[in-house]
Amino acid sequence: MKKKIKKINAAILIIGNEILSGRTQDKNISFISNWLNSSCGISVSEVRIIPDEEKIIAKNILVLSKKFNYVFTTGGIGPTHDDITAQSISKAFKVKYEYHKEAYKILENYYGREKFNDGRKKMSKMPRGAKLIYNPSSAAPGFMVKNVISLPGVPSILNSMIENCKRYLIKGLRIHSKTINLYTVESNISKQLGLIQKKYKKFVDIGSYPFFRLGKIGVAVVSRSNSILKLKNVQKDILELAKRKKIKILKI
Amino acid sequence: MKKKIKKINAAILIIGNEILSGRTQDKNISFISNWLNSSCGISVSEVRIIPDEEKIIAKNILVLSKKFNYVFTTGGIGPTHDDITAQSISKAFKVKYEYHKEAYKILENYYGREKFNDGRKKMSKMPRGAKLIYNPSSAAPGFMVKNVISLPGVPSILNSMIENCKRYLIKGLRIHSKTINLYTVESNISKQLGLIQKKYKKFVDIGSYPFFRLGKIGVAVVSRSNSILKLKNVQKDILELAKRKKIKILKI
Repeated sequence: MKKKIKKINAAILIIGNEILSGRTQDKNISFISNWLNSSCGISVSEVRIIPDEEKIIAKNILVLSKKFNYVFTTGGIGPTHDDITAQSISKAFKVKYEYHKEAYKILENYYGREKFNDGRKKMSKMPRGAKLIYNPSSAAPGFMVKNVISLPGVPSILNSMIENCKRYLIKGLRIHSKTINLYTVESNISKQLGLIQKKYKKFVDIGSYPFFRLGKIGVAVVSRSNSILKLKNVQKDILELAKRKKIKILKI
Repeated sequence: MKKKIKKINAAILIIGNEILSGRTQDKNISFISNWLNSSCGISVSEVRIIPDEEKIIAKNILVLSKKFNYVFTTGGIGPTHDDITAQSISKAFKVKYEYHKEAYKILENYYGREKFNDGRKKMSKMPRGAKLIYNPSSAAPGFMVKNVISLPGVPSILNSMIENCKRYLIKGLRIHSKTINLYTVESNISKQLGLIQKKYKKFVDIGSYPFFRLGKIGVAVVSRSNSILKLKNVQKDILELAKRKKIKILKI
């Protein structure tokens, strides 16, 4: 991994009619986002889910790759007619869509020359100049072009490949997060929580999320920051607020 | 529900740092998308997940509300400082952000005058002219302004409210879907599947998705169309393909 600088962000572009239609529940967003933050100090700033349509994919690639340090795409790099991510990225960046020599060899070796049919060959067609993301579970590689990294949609395969993205990424400062679970309702603490947020405005991000646990209602107060010290101060303020209001804390 | 016309589409805008950071796994996208299609014949064409930031929310509201027939937002309508969906939509549409009389009464009745504090009052502040989406589970209503419907982020509450959106929506033609599960790999059928897709180009959308079941690999071939007849013809072609290639079918 390369030089460490301050804030690095990324977008995730989920390509797939099956997620849009609600048929399939996405599992890649939270996995990629957690991995990027904990392993690389990169924050995901936007996610989009779009259909398998070349023009729409190309347009979103252009918009997001300009706006963010990195773009991660998932889906559409398999062997079938609806797998059009590689050709769409080629269109977006106006580079040739062609066989990648190394990817071709990897797949030819994996399947054996006789079983290396057109569908399988297609998986080695990429935008010219693509760098490979190796795939330890099913051979067909992902790839990186400019600041865009393309991974498959099947979660187990994506998960097995993610570490191989690391070498291409510039590391940022990790965002740490602390959660305090309070047995109360949001509206009981909203005013005071707002004041704490104001106090640490630029340094800590405080969010509150209702939860239900064993028939009891509570609020998870999540603080996120680059600075562990600032995070500790916020925690202290929240614990004091709980004490003042006689709110019980759920320890997990 | 109003007049039935052909193609009606929608976008979903998920507002929330907790989803972007990977802390929380979204459950609303597939629920809303399935409900919209099966109950209203509306297809979700794009989803975006964005942070709790006023400018970003307002910009996305403007872009998506122009591009699609409806926009559904989730999250950010609670009582705390990070709940800024209503004020951001007001900014986007340049309308006043003010107490909604009926919403105010609903909440005052629900909590009782003494417990109706500032945080709870905040939940009745909305863009001027908002229509209410009633909330049978926790009182605080969602709302509709222009073609944008705002719902809470907590899935159980959202689910209880969704039927109350129906009266505001124009119904489209429902998209039907059929799945055939084949015990094969994608690259074994990709060429033939591509030809079937070509044959029914404008009428049926065919997607293929690998699955793993009891240690066996397979492909779910999903066809989607407004026309049940065309869907049946595609099913016939796929079953013939399976027979020709001696592929077993998984019956669920």
